[in-house]
Amino acid sequence: MTDQNLSKGRILVVGLGPGPEKWLTPEASDALVIASDLIGYGPYVERAPHREGQLRHASDNRVEIDRARHALELAKAGRVVAVVSGGDPGVFAMAAALFEAVDHGDETDRAVRIEILPGVSAMQGAAARLGAPLGHDFCAISLSDNLKPWAVIERRLTAAAQGDFVIAFYNPASRARPDAIHTAFALLRSLKAGATPVALARAVGRPDERLIVTTLAEVDPSLCDMSTLVLIGSSETRFVERPDGLAPWIYTPRHYGAGR
Amino acid sequence: MTDQNLSKGRILVVGLGPGPEKWLTPEASDALVIASDLIGYGPYVERAPHREGQLRHASDNRVEIDRARHALELAKAGRVVAVVSGGDPGVFAMAAALFEAVDHGDETDRAVRIEILPGVSAMQGAAARLGAPLGHDFCAISLSDNLKPWAVIERRLTAAAQGDFVIAFYNPASRARPDAIHTAFALLRSLKAGATPVALARAVGRPDERLIVTTLAEVDPSLCDMSTLVLIGSSETRFVERPDGLAPWIYTPRHYGAGR
Repeated sequence: MTDQNLSKGRILVVGLGPGPEKWLTPEASDALVIASDLIGYGPYVERAPHREGQLRHASDNRVEIDRARHALELAKAGRVVAVVSGGDPGVFAMAAALFEAVDHGDETDRAVRIEILPGVSAMQGAAARLGAPLGHDFCAISLSDNLKPWAVIERRLTAAAQGDFVIAFYNPASRARPDAIHTAFALLRSLKAGATPVALARAVGRPDERLIVTTLAEVDPSLCDMSTLVLIGSSETRFVERPDGLAPWIYTPRHYGAGR
Repeated sequence: MTDQNLSKGRILVVGLGPGPEKWLTPEASDALVIASDLIGYGPYVERAPHREGQLRHASDNRVEIDRARHALELAKAGRVVAVVSGGDPGVFAMAAALFEAVDHGDETDRAVRIEILPGVSAMQGAAARLGAPLGHDFCAISLSDNLKPWAVIERRLTAAAQGDFVIAFYNPASRARPDAIHTAFALLRSLKAGATPVALARAVGRPDERLIVTTLAEVDPSLCDMSTLVLIGSSETRFVERPDGLAPWIYTPRHYGAGR
């Protein structure tokens, strides 16, 4: 490693958004152009336009720390590395994995230039399609398996209900823990009104988008897959009926108590 | 109102992001071009490039419902109305105000075509500059005055601490309730460790950006103004020291208990 390489190499952690080009920021588009190397989960790397001379390092879904280490080594060798991530890389995604790698690395890792490029996260794309469910206080919880004890998830679901937050679930369906979403909904049904608006927003902004607008009493958790973002209202969240057979809008008023 | 006007008129609720062009989505940029009318809080309307023939309706900060009603009337008259909002319009912003107006309006309001165009929200811009504080479960709470009883804020802060969420505060400084941020931090200090990482991120992405990285014990709440986004870590959130006098990164590991 030379000083020259150190000053030139860097890592750009790029948020691709939920899918469509129209939600990709100019900053993220530029990063995909200037990078010498793209690193990421295969389907995300595939989203970037192919460019001559650019190296592509696609990897599997469960190797975030290996991927982060690889990015650090490339940057220290003077490469401009775009680590691509769906949605916003700062929200349940690659940015945290990268800083974990730096935290457990050595002094040279801490000197690497790192820039996080934010993007539209899945809950924002879903909210935009549904109305304005995130119009007031909300929380985001990942149900991903392996990453935390179920007791922590249960504690957070209980707190989210007690605080009457709107709730967004990321990673609701998990191969290692297939009953997680069922258990989560059962717990919330014991803590919140059955009439609470619920939406399942799958593959938002993509050709296979599917939106289900329902209630906590009626939702079928088995309809959630790994591409589904789940939104659960607060006690204030309301439906607004629409004509012509369209699904109702869902929104959460800015004023507490306004909907009563 | 004619059928032709109804089919042509529509409302695009546009998220401008935290400020810089590089964070404005292509969808939002296009909306600012195709709109016949721009409606919004003055400083947001000013951010859009001036276009010949486009009407601009700038208004004060506290008239969201009037603005929403105005947009509905223009759309029903066949206009293509861009309602401009900072950040993401779905997060503590104009989208909820618009659906409130529709909810309290008549049948013709419910038939208006409405599209919400998501954007990068302030907490995402702040998180990107700071590291990856939103790498694990988090919640977003508005401290805005007038919009909810203090008891609701207190209940949510307590729940957020009990659930050990990372916390983002929007609108931390309020003219009508100047001691809110002090009271909020005092409550959190009674519930969380003093060493918890805290960041005050002001005007992120703009020329007057200012980032303060500190702890819950040491933070000075009087440094928050209306352009400040406050981030408060969970028990897992960690600092990563950097060389050359740079402020440490802040990140929240994806694995609960990983940092211990």
